[in-house]
Amino acid sequence: MPSHPIRVTVWNENVHEQREEAVRARYPDGIHGAIAQGIKEFRGDQVQVRTATLDEPEHGLTEEVLAKTDVLTWWGHAAHERVSDEVVSRVQQHVLGGMGLVVLHSGHFSKIFRTLLGTTCSLRWRGADDRELVWTLKPRHPVAEGVPNPIVIPEQEMYGEVFDIPDPDELVFVSSFSGGEVFRSGCVFHRGNGRIFYFSPGDQGYPVYHHPDVRRVIANAVVWTAPAQAARDVPALRQSPLGWFEESAKESP
Amino acid sequence: MPSHPIRVTVWNENVHEQREEAVRARYPDGIHGAIAQGIKEFRGDQVQVRTATLDEPEHGLTEEVLAKTDVLTWWGHAAHERVSDEVVSRVQQHVLGGMGLVVLHSGHFSKIFRTLLGTTCSLRWRGADDRELVWTLKPRHPVAEGVPNPIVIPEQEMYGEVFDIPDPDELVFVSSFSGGEVFRSGCVFHRGNGRIFYFSPGDQGYPVYHHPDVRRVIANAVVWTAPAQAARDVPALRQSPLGWFEESAKESP
Amino acid sequence: MPSHPIRVTVWNENVHEQREEAVRARYPDGIHGAIAQGIKEFRGDQVQVRTATLDEPEHGLTEEVLAKTDVLTWWGHAAHERVSDEVVSRVQQHVLGGMGLVVLHSGHFSKIFRTLLGTTCSLRWRGADDRELVWTLKPRHPVAEGVPNPIVIPEQEMYGEVFDIPDPDELVFVSSFSGGEVFRSGCVFHRGNGRIFYFSPGDQGYPVYHHPDVRRVIANAVVWTAPAQAARDVPALRQSPLGWFEESAKESP
Amino acid sequence: MPSHPIRVTVWNENVHEQREEAVRARYPDGIHGAIAQGIKEFRGDQVQVRTATLDEPEHGLTEEVLAKTDVLTWWGHAAHERVSDEVVSRVQQHVLGGMGLVVLHSGHFSKIFRTLLGTTCSLRWRGADDRELVWTLKPRHPVAEGVPNPIVIPEQEMYGEVFDIPDPDELVFVSSFSGGEVFRSGCVFHRGNGRIFYFSPGDQGYPVYHHPDVRRVIANAVVWTAPAQAARDVPALRQSPLGWFEESAKESP
Repeated sequence: MPSHPIRVTVWNENVHEQREEAVRARYPDGIHGAIAQGIKEFRGDQVQVRTATLDEPEHGLTEEVLAKTDVLTWWGHAAHERVSDEVVSRVQQHVLGGMGLVVLHSGHFSKIFRTLLGTTCSLRWRGADDRELVWTLKPRHPVAEGVPNPIVIPEQEMYGEVFDIPDPDELVFVSSFSGGEVFRSGCVFHRGNGRIFYFSPGDQGYPVYHHPDVRRVIANAVVWTAPAQAARDVPALRQSPLGWFEESAKESP
Repeated sequence: MPSHPIRVTVWNENVHEQREEAVRARYPDGIHGAIAQGIKEFRGDQVQVRTATLDEPEHGLTEEVLAKTDVLTWWGHAAHERVSDEVVSRVQQHVLGGMGLVVLHSGHFSKIFRTLLGTTCSLRWRGADDRELVWTLKPRHPVAEGVPNPIVIPEQEMYGEVFDIPDPDELVFVSSFSGGEVFRSGCVFHRGNGRIFYFSPGDQGYPVYHHPDVRRVIANAVVWTAPAQAARDVPALRQSPLGWFEESAKESP
Repeated sequence: MPSHPIRVTVWNENVHEQREEAVRARYPDGIHGAIAQGIKEFRGDQVQVRTATLDEPEHGLTEEVLAKTDVLTWWGHAAHERVSDEVVSRVQQHVLGGMGLVVLHSGHFSKIFRTLLGTTCSLRWRGADDRELVWTLKPRHPVAEGVPNPIVIPEQEMYGEVFDIPDPDELVFVSSFSGGEVFRSGCVFHRGNGRIFYFSPGDQGYPVYHHPDVRRVIANAVVWTAPAQAARDVPALRQSPLGWFEESAKESP
Repeated sequence: MPSHPIRVTVWNENVHEQREEAVRARYPDGIHGAIAQGIKEFRGDQVQVRTATLDEPEHGLTEEVLAKTDVLTWWGHAAHERVSDEVVSRVQQHVLGGMGLVVLHSGHFSKIFRTLLGTTCSLRWRGADDRELVWTLKPRHPVAEGVPNPIVIPEQEMYGEVFDIPDPDELVFVSSFSGGEVFRSGCVFHRGNGRIFYFSPGDQGYPVYHHPDVRRVIANAVVWTAPAQAARDVPALRQSPLGWFEESAKESP
């Protein structure tokens, strides 16, 4: 965890909120507003939170913004294809260089998530007011700190297996739905020097981002994916002559 | 998969069957009889199946029997503590040397499973006629071949998380229960030169071992955990002088 | 392993062989020729091997060719950027749908490998005639069958850590070099319904693809990554109404 | 990381030091003294370090001592079999309940390590003054913080593969030796609620525990394996009636 406040950029495509009255009523400050609010609620001075949306120039994710972002959270659904490949590639470089990334719900189909994982990230779904129970498999994982086991979400969109992802490096949460399906709802992936956390609860059609336990998990994930060092370090090719490390070895006893 | 028929030993403590009329009615040939029958049903000439039970001398698991066993399946519940430490240690050596092991249901608390995994293997449970749905996360895994996704088990004991096991090397199945719980119900572990598959469906109180899909998974697991080589090879300490591999290298071009 | 012969397509950019006399002398049938020869040498009737190269229309990797390919092996180095994005995307879909992929040596920087893994796949390197020792960590893994531990490669390009890949699903080989570096030289990745094996030994500047143990590993990997079912099955989004699986359940007892 | 100083118990069998003049000269305060000194050197007020040895009553690892230990480090070699099974079982319970465990060098063959991992933990070895290079595979892992890549250890006992352990949950370091062997020298295992780190450099026959980079890794590992909560929580069987979580759910919105 960095010693300075963690600089969080909450990204949202912000499309449903523009088009649908019901969504606007549910999230008057936008989905990004609700997510940002939740992070601040649980982490206070530990974080500095800003937001960015699709319609801003370069989607609000300029090189300058990313360079000053420790952790990026991502929500998208209706407009994945409108995100430019250039911005996706830029975000990927920052993640590989150490920036934390928290991908939420329908972000499973975002370009950035699919680019970082390499698979289709497809799944089973249903919008039918299922109850979701989010079960913790690793009670001592920092991302699960302080939440009940299970988290009960009264109404939710169903996401079910098969979720086409590489095996997660850590599987923190698995959800069940009242219709019977299961889903790997909390997954850790390490890519390059960056930490990625995928968390599936949350939808434009339900008030899930007002749920205190969901907010707490997202806030935990922000802290946990934050890099220890602010400077980016993208892994790169290195040519190393024979014996290149001998010199530094001489400095050791 | 060995070219000869896979030699399977189906082990059962065989205690509930002796004590309880209802269990005897459900499993007239014992739980081991039902499991053995299922394996033969699905694999025919590909397998040679024998059974062994707690009350036999050395629990039927002498060195001679194990030396001729490619895959051992394990069912126990009421009498884990009556299994001798010597036999447990012997089985462990055979698994580390390459013998396949399929641990079933309440075998999660067997000495052999806990010894091989090192954790408590504890879990949440309830006997209340839950419906279990067994979901496949890896549709192309050989253990999942030919079964529907999900497998529907109308009545079952509930097993729920937190299941205290090391992270499985592969997570093939996750179950949900009508009461809402989830459980990692199909787990692969590699230990030494042996393959271990844990599969949770099955109980003395329900006719689960007569369920064709459950039988098929167990039969698949027997084939998949069978070693390619019959000879045991327990990893051992080796002292290797400088340059020990040069000689063999000379034989290569 | 499919019952019919495994249909293997050995892909090579075939650029060094055109430009450099020394490479042509070392690999008179091209690097692809040597790789194909090695696979046939060890697997005979078990395989049907064809080759394809960069300069063919669509790089020889048309939809028709891929549809009839069980396993694709990939070698590239000087011309990664000349591989069209369309072909890369097509190959990715086939891998996610079940086609096996064996990526060799400098293929670590190929578009297809980076696309499937999501990371930079960068590493440390040196061309200075190091001896490479390829150590088996999993002696019973099918890919390591029949090779000595270690495999001794008298002269090789050095590849060293940090190798920027996601944690492999299985780490089969680790190499050391006479200059002191280490490298994860044999890595398994599961992506979608496909199996990927990366194997680092091999270079245009050394006769590594004539080395019998290297050939044997590649031949093993071809068999091991071959799908059990020839038909592709790319994971896809599914909308599932409440209770969708009840009907099939009725057919079970 | 706990807010209070991390309470570290450095355990050593302390046998070679009693028997061999050369070891006593190398480690005048015992191997435990050198290890304890290194941890304090790098972590100062962040830690409270005590030591315990085999010859103390209950090997110095009473229930009372363990209850006040956040992280235990373990060094043994000549006297593994003299460690009582009761103490091993007690330590295992504390690890599963959350205590950190750092196992060093020849501790790979300790009863506690083998008990927690379930495998033989055997390996290849040679005492012939090899140079060891410790390569970092995960530069941002907290255990690798601040050390050069590679760490150069001028003279060391060789440990080589095959190291018979379960696949580590994270592989942080791999070593090469001047004789050519490789070894997974820095491995993370999660067991129960506890974190285990195995680090192989270090020997009674070489002054490795005076090496500043080795000391730094051990000090890092102590901090990283320390539990966030001091209270032990050993996973245990729970019987849960249908709907047991509904009540708590009512408290959530």
